[in-house]
Amino acid sequence: MAVCELLSVGTELLLGDILNTNAQYLSQRLAQMGISVLHQTTVGDNPERLAAAVGTALSRSDIVIATGGLGPTPDDITAEICCREFGFELEFDSGTADKITSYFKNKGMEMPQSNLKQAYVPAGGTILENTHGTAPGMGMKKGGKCIVLLPGPPYEMREIFENKVVDYLSEYRSGAIVSHEVRTIGISESGLAEEFRDLIDGSNPTVAPYCKIGEAFLRVTAKADTPEEAEKMTAGVIAQIKEKIGRYIYGIDCKNIEDAIVPMLKKAGLTLATAESCTAGLVAKRITDIPGASSVFRHGVITYANEVKERELGVSHETLERFGAVSEETAVEMAKGIRRRSGADIGISVTGFAGPDADEEGKAPGLIYIALDSADVTRCEKIETGRNDRDYNRYTAASRALNLVKKYLTTEL
Amino acid sequence: MAVCELLSVGTELLLGDILNTNAQYLSQRLAQMGISVLHQTTVGDNPERLAAAVGTALSRSDIVIATGGLGPTPDDITAEICCREFGFELEFDSGTADKITSYFKNKGMEMPQSNLKQAYVPAGGTILENTHGTAPGMGMKKGGKCIVLLPGPPYEMREIFENKVVDYLSEYRSGAIVSHEVRTIGISESGLAEEFRDLIDGSNPTVAPYCKIGEAFLRVTAKADTPEEAEKMTAGVIAQIKEKIGRYIYGIDCKNIEDAIVPMLKKAGLTLATAESCTAGLVAKRITDIPGASSVFRHGVITYANEVKERELGVSHETLERFGAVSEETAVEMAKGIRRRSGADIGISVTGFAGPDADEEGKAPGLIYIALDSADVTRCEKIETGRNDRDYNRYTAASRALNLVKKYLTTEL
Repeated sequence: MAVCELLSVGTELLLGDILNTNAQYLSQRLAQMGISVLHQTTVGDNPERLAAAVGTALSRSDIVIATGGLGPTPDDITAEICCREFGFELEFDSGTADKITSYFKNKGMEMPQSNLKQAYVPAGGTILENTHGTAPGMGMKKGGKCIVLLPGPPYEMREIFENKVVDYLSEYRSGAIVSHEVRTIGISESGLAEEFRDLIDGSNPTVAPYCKIGEAFLRVTAKADTPEEAEKMTAGVIAQIKEKIGRYIYGIDCKNIEDAIVPMLKKAGLTLATAESCTAGLVAKRITDIPGASSVFRHGVITYANEVKERELGVSHETLERFGAVSEETAVEMAKGIRRRSGADIGISVTGFAGPDADEEGKAPGLIYIALDSADVTRCEKIETGRNDRDYNRYTAASRALNLVKKYLTTEL
Repeated sequence: MAVCELLSVGTELLLGDILNTNAQYLSQRLAQMGISVLHQTTVGDNPERLAAAVGTALSRSDIVIATGGLGPTPDDITAEICCREFGFELEFDSGTADKITSYFKNKGMEMPQSNLKQAYVPAGGTILENTHGTAPGMGMKKGGKCIVLLPGPPYEMREIFENKVVDYLSEYRSGAIVSHEVRTIGISESGLAEEFRDLIDGSNPTVAPYCKIGEAFLRVTAKADTPEEAEKMTAGVIAQIKEKIGRYIYGIDCKNIEDAIVPMLKKAGLTLATAESCTAGLVAKRITDIPGASSVFRHGVITYANEVKERELGVSHETLERFGAVSEETAVEMAKGIRRRSGADIGISVTGFAGPDADEEGKAPGLIYIALDSADVTRCEKIETGRNDRDYNRYTAASRALNLVKKYLTTEL
């Protein structure tokens, strides 16, 4: 399998002024092409350190892809340094110069003379045309190794990569890699690791556990000669996982729980309404992040204050007095209240202490109740995150409330 | 100036499965501390390559900060390899073990035995406590050099960095860099660039324009021998900026508009209620992101469907028929309706097309109306983002709705 190193060039990256999305994009695409990225390196616009990085990268990789530093200013040195280290000469290319000139002309702008610097390309190399900007991409191949230079702006970089670099690197591609995510709620990352130790120890397919806020997932990745074969290998492992922990799984390759339940609700022809206290709109916001959610979601209420819970949802004053706003009893009355008021098939509610501080009664942040009410089932779950992180607690509560809908739809309640 | 190398560890980064936000965060914070980041390196969970990367980093830097690979699973090898390369031994720390055990106990979960791996820390090193997870940060110092190990999950990493690492690295800090953000809504990044070209050309303080979703800001940074001196330099520039574009500024160093208006509402003793259609809870969620928002926010309604706008907010059927749900008239009736219904001092509303697709009437995504109603003022603004990006449109609409409150409170309406 060919080995690639990504070299991101730019002092702005080292200062943290910009986020390195190029490295992620290229890594993902190269993995899909069966090319192994083993190092990502970032250096500034400094000739010595860039030269050293190029040398190191060439010594341990078949392919080096450098992004950034192809602009017209004096601190754009990537082309010069990479050519020198790889033994290529830069030469003026009149075709590229013409393109740069007409790029400015088409925009009705005068071309700064400095931009002609971008018309110098490696003699004996390949110009990888940039249809979205003035800096062309460049490729050089020698002795089985290869350097690709791409401009830093993500939009230009991606365009050149897809239209030119994928072909340019075709000789390095190997087999097919297929990867799937088994997303779960209700089991921890380490719980997954314990449960599937044998699979995790395997080498192809690989299985790796990860955690996100309020949930955990397993990534199953297989390499094979063809995509079909790789798909088959992952399918076998995913079937094993489903058999063991199916009740925690809300979807395969879903972005999140809302991505899973909106289509499920649509398919079931059911509508959902929300009554939120501590999440204060986050559950509704997440449902409606999914385009087309309007066919399953029409109405939500945010009852942040107790008297609003009484007035808008009919939560009884006695319940609030006796059990408190953060209680199973209140959560259930909220879910019933919003279902009644909205006429939706399912009502869900969230009430809890998001933190970061303990409430007046001294109850710890992270204590949250979520409830679901429907014609046939009423259910409440208690959550104790043990954290005083407001964002974490609210996001987790919203995920768990949405997961209650998934459980209802899969008749696990 | 001390030199630091960032070492991000994790095969998931090399596969492009996750974006390396840690490198950006740490780079930014270290720059503010007067510590130079010259290399960012990413390697996978591979012992040989990680060891080589640690060796290289130690050879060219004073400080190495490694993130990721401190978890409980067998492929979490960062602590082991870094200790070996730097000449430290890992030893079992019963205090850390107790913390991990009670972390699980507090969550009512059984602790997987594998988690005790995280109780091994460098003998002679420093434990950098993690209040948000089980993996502690660790520090080792020897011969003027230093290695810091931090867990990969960003919220844990940031917490430990701010609460422990900043102090731990104090001897490496040099001079003082002070940086402030002047946050604006209603003027674009290029608008700011044009307006302040002279300041942007300056070298100390530096002034740089940036954009975020739905807003733009100027970062003003000064270097000096003392923090007081640097503060004074930035203050002068910020005063100049305020004089020119004060009406667009909602705050200095605010995280966002909600961070600015919740304290303003508290100070004014006013309450706010929300009626949301296309943002569907995002405005309320953002207000309540701010701890203590309950004194200014008690009630919100999400009226995603037209009949819910009529029933819950008293929007007239005729208005909806004649002008449509996405119209100034509907937005105003929604704001009036929620103010009446909630008894709050201020009602705000949002109605629009979030996209990504055009609506049934063929109106373009990104057309949104926001309105504010109070005892003395009623106002509506129209937004046309020109984009079909659902998240962008919803976030922008929410920001602009909240900015309407800021305008009201500063009597700009």
